[in-house]
Amino acid sequence: MDQTVPALLQHECVVFPEGLHLECGFHLAPVQVAYRTYGTLSAARDNAIVVCHALTGDQYLADTHPLTGKPGWWSRMVGPGLPIDTDRFFVICMNVLGGCMGSTGPRSPRSGGEGGSAEPWGTDFPPVTIRDMVRAQKLVVDRLGIRRLFAVVGGSMGGMQVLEWAATYPDMVFAAMPIATSPFHSAQNIAFNEVSRQAIFADPDWHGGRYWERDAVPARGLAVARMMAHITYLSEEALTRKFGRRVRRDPYGDNPLSLFGEMFEVESYLRHQGSSFVHRFDANSYLTITRAMDYFDLGTEHDGDLSRPFHGTRTRFCIVSFSSDWLFPTSQARMLARALNRAAANVSFVEIESDKGHDAFLLDEPDFDRTVRGFLSGAAEHARIG
Amino acid sequence: MDQTVPALLQHECVVFPEGLHLECGFHLAPVQVAYRTYGTLSAARDNAIVVCHALTGDQYLADTHPLTGKPGWWSRMVGPGLPIDTDRFFVICMNVLGGCMGSTGPRSPRSGGEGGSAEPWGTDFPPVTIRDMVRAQKLVVDRLGIRRLFAVVGGSMGGMQVLEWAATYPDMVFAAMPIATSPFHSAQNIAFNEVSRQAIFADPDWHGGRYWERDAVPARGLAVARMMAHITYLSEEALTRKFGRRVRRDPYGDNPLSLFGEMFEVESYLRHQGSSFVHRFDANSYLTITRAMDYFDLGTEHDGDLSRPFHGTRTRFCIVSFSSDWLFPTSQARMLARALNRAAANVSFVEIESDKGHDAFLLDEPDFDRTVRGFLSGAAEHARIG
Repeated sequence: MDQTVPALLQHECVVFPEGLHLECGFHLAPVQVAYRTYGTLSAARDNAIVVCHALTGDQYLADTHPLTGKPGWWSRMVGPGLPIDTDRFFVICMNVLGGCMGSTGPRSPRSGGEGGSAEPWGTDFPPVTIRDMVRAQKLVVDRLGIRRLFAVVGGSMGGMQVLEWAATYPDMVFAAMPIATSPFHSAQNIAFNEVSRQAIFADPDWHGGRYWERDAVPARGLAVARMMAHITYLSEEALTRKFGRRVRRDPYGDNPLSLFGEMFEVESYLRHQGSSFVHRFDANSYLTITRAMDYFDLGTEHDGDLSRPFHGTRTRFCIVSFSSDWLFPTSQARMLARALNRAAANVSFVEIESDKGHDAFLLDEPDFDRTVRGFLSGAAEHARIG
Repeated sequence: MDQTVPALLQHECVVFPEGLHLECGFHLAPVQVAYRTYGTLSAARDNAIVVCHALTGDQYLADTHPLTGKPGWWSRMVGPGLPIDTDRFFVICMNVLGGCMGSTGPRSPRSGGEGGSAEPWGTDFPPVTIRDMVRAQKLVVDRLGIRRLFAVVGGSMGGMQVLEWAATYPDMVFAAMPIATSPFHSAQNIAFNEVSRQAIFADPDWHGGRYWERDAVPARGLAVARMMAHITYLSEEALTRKFGRRVRRDPYGDNPLSLFGEMFEVESYLRHQGSSFVHRFDANSYLTITRAMDYFDLGTEHDGDLSRPFHGTRTRFCIVSFSSDWLFPTSQARMLARALNRAAANVSFVEIESDKGHDAFLLDEPDFDRTVRGFLSGAAEHARIG
């Protein structure tokens, strides 16, 4: 085992030729999982934290993103001395199954071979679930020789993975921190995802999902999907504070409807969000991952009883919501807290006052930082690590 | 005057060859306004109510829609014995300037001639504002020989027109009922509108707005725009109650991502909303009207002071909001109420408890019906009509 770890780190991915039997019934093989680690695994292998990324996140948690050149998406949270302290903890972040940053997904060669000449899966990629994602992550954790994770932490779809980790592998998760998430995807969120998908399907460059054959990408559809989603990540207060009704000269010069040759700043911002996104994300991955989110429902195998997956759990939970998050509102976090209470779980629940909306978990929120630091420190004391 | 009214009713529109000088500086001529009336204008011409329609509404308020064959959009509110009682009031509803149901808009022939061979305005149609819409409506009201409207009533963008009527022609409006609306369009709402527009622009069948030349309509882009907008018209509660996470067999049979050959009911519903909409609405009108909404801001000429347009007003206002409306939330209605209070206006403000979201003003809400009926009856008593 010890010999393979450096090799894995060097390649930043690990291949499982035996693959994975997916929930849909399909056997996907091989399965490759791309990952990054931060900090040092202790000799007792007891200080590992898995951080799960959200819909459009990836494993580049705390180092420079290889495509955008920007700091990792949680570099303000994960690092030496930071709330998720890499001087103390060994942090693993893995690209989800179905993703497009190295883990097996719609862009992977269908043959799975090393030749690279085989065509990609595209929309033939089997549907995956949040549980499939977690099971792929567990393969890596097992390979690293880690028998118990100190903690699993994640926001939004990352929080769904945290819950699935705790429900599927209760003995492997000492502490769990689901942030800005829900025990099931709501009708409204399914609706938003469906509009995203329809925007991609509507783009002629989608070519039925086989855009690579035409050397095309459905950039306009994917940009529309991202723009819409981006609104849902913010709050009315945040948009008003950042942009209000301010106008600027139309930098695109292409708006035939402009009243005075101007556009609203919020429009310009959204267009930028849309166009920069398409350079780093694959449309078929977007379709696959949004579908996985839609299918997420912890109660589905238990007649809707959300407490059942957690009966007998010894995991310590800390649920976090943000007051202005309307995509994963506090009411859904509270539903989760009540379910865990019914399961007699060890659970704390914190609603952070913030006007930044769903994205607050990625932004500068000192109360949130303190909550993460405090929960992990307290749990570490109980786990007698560090 | 009396001779022209039947002719107008027969044609259901009135043409103003002299046209209108728009706020953008463009002189639009001729201007045609399509309208429907319900009830009978009293001999004193003192019982007229203008009902203003929302973004995708039209003048077919209370009779069968000529395109969809469905009842008018407010047929449950307007009619004999109904809250807006046509046994008592003469109701006028006009298609907005920029619309696509008979009033001058992007689909109108550019020449304005009767020949009909001239090509449509398309995206060369000048940008219009909510005030331009109201000024076009006033031409019709003048033509009908009505010197003072008993009331102006409308929801959503219709409510913006109500406010603009009261601000621009204070002596012509005895009572005003702005419903589910705001004194300015918020950054979040501008953002949603911008995504709608980008979805239309992204459709290759848009052809730069000249789709009629290719015998095409940007149906996919317009459907995506409508689907997204439709989510904003509802509430999470309403979506959960109507659809929850229920699935059904995929009636489209075209979903490569389906996990079990099923789709969520909310997806099927949204697709239906999108596809039925494109048969009755013009994409360039959608662009023009959303832009008019975005530019709406009562404070714009008054350093942001929303009370200034109403100083000295004698109009009686009744502002209505709905508790679950997150597109035009109660907070915005309250801002309007405060502005009217500062202007020492006669104003009442009612928040209706409802879980139906923004669309509540179109749906069965007995408390809302009572509010409309009560306000109009009380105002009619003060106006000594009926």
